[in-house]
Amino acid sequence: MTGTAPARRRGRPPAAEAPPGDTRDRILRAAIDLFAEQGFHGTGVAEIGARADVQRGALYYHIGSKEELLWLILRDYTALMLTAAEHIVETDDPPVAKLRRLIRSHVRLIIDHQREVAIQLRDVGALAGARGAELQTLRDRIQHCWQRVIDDGQRSGALRSADHVVTNGILGMLNTVAFWYRPHGDRSPAQIADLLATTLLDGISTTTDPHTKG
Amino acid sequence: MTGTAPARRRGRPPAAEAPPGDTRDRILRAAIDLFAEQGFHGTGVAEIGARADVQRGALYYHIGSKEELLWLILRDYTALMLTAAEHIVETDDPPVAKLRRLIRSHVRLIIDHQREVAIQLRDVGALAGARGAELQTLRDRIQHCWQRVIDDGQRSGALRSADHVVTNGILGMLNTVAFWYRPHGDRSPAQIADLLATTLLDGISTTTDPHTKG
Repeated sequence: MTGTAPARRRGRPPAAEAPPGDTRDRILRAAIDLFAEQGFHGTGVAEIGARADVQRGALYYHIGSKEELLWLILRDYTALMLTAAEHIVETDDPPVAKLRRLIRSHVRLIIDHQREVAIQLRDVGALAGARGAELQTLRDRIQHCWQRVIDDGQRSGALRSADHVVTNGILGMLNTVAFWYRPHGDRSPAQIADLLATTLLDGISTTTDPHTKG
Repeated sequence: MTGTAPARRRGRPPAAEAPPGDTRDRILRAAIDLFAEQGFHGTGVAEIGARADVQRGALYYHIGSKEELLWLILRDYTALMLTAAEHIVETDDPPVAKLRRLIRSHVRLIIDHQREVAIQLRDVGALAGARGAELQTLRDRIQHCWQRVIDDGQRSGALRSADHVVTNGILGMLNTVAFWYRPHGDRSPAQIADLLATTLLDGISTTTDPHTKG
């Protein structure tokens, strides 16, 4: 989606030497690498230009500021998560099946965007004003997708609780996969998703506590 | 624990105007506030001095550097978590009871140290070298406490899985309480801990999936 956002040109003509989409994507990829490695505040615009092999003038033509890059990175990643969640919520699957699919899809996206998640967790506070609010709206819509499925599951009797604490807990468990996942570890993304889905749906206890099972 | 660490004096005599422990604690509290509000990189030493009402010279007498403050904050908080976990692990409770106690204790400490958790998640990367390694060792020891209880539970047949993915998932769910907990929300820390303990032990599904229950 990074190549299609229309708001970046500000009426200036595209640079002649390279397709603008390519240069812009290269700058975004460099910024993701650098922000993830050394943080938003620890990264200078000149470094991003050097890593992307783009001259200073072209850099400012393609991006307005370092904060603009942070915004594009977090917006693109969050919009992707939201699209995937909405797609699953709109199917006719029963709630528990939807929840399993949401978990699998979310873990896969978290792992594929491990650097963006790290940037989000560390540097989202640097997005001030309208952009910070807009990102929060996208994040709220993702949470709302999960809550809708969990609410439906409780209404149908398939899930025991639709408490917001549980929804927050589930998303916390899945989002933090980005902190500990290692590409060459002994569990694949699909195995991780299945282990966590089983933990969340069936619990890790082999017996049911009569005080807590509803 | 902040008043007892012996390594800060470097042979200089204590300042005469105030008990050194008090001043030091005031500086630490100011740094926790400011780092949590605006990040480690976004906070200047002079700001910390102003917030703590401490002169520049006294500031440098009590702390060596801004990084030293970050280290003390994260070390104290992590050591507290470790002490609590070790205390529970060393009791004679059965594994599931220990796990419930670990969850309650961890959620309580996370909520009481919400700002330290935010600093940890955002700025731990600023701790370089030996200190970064020492903090990681403390964190590994906490994880090891949880893993030991979960391993014991699996061996005794009370828990279904002792996979590291599950342990990481549990800690991720609990640690991120710091992101969404609000002091005036509709759930107390004890209720949050119980809801998450039930989710983790018994799952949120009312039925057991025959494909996943071991």
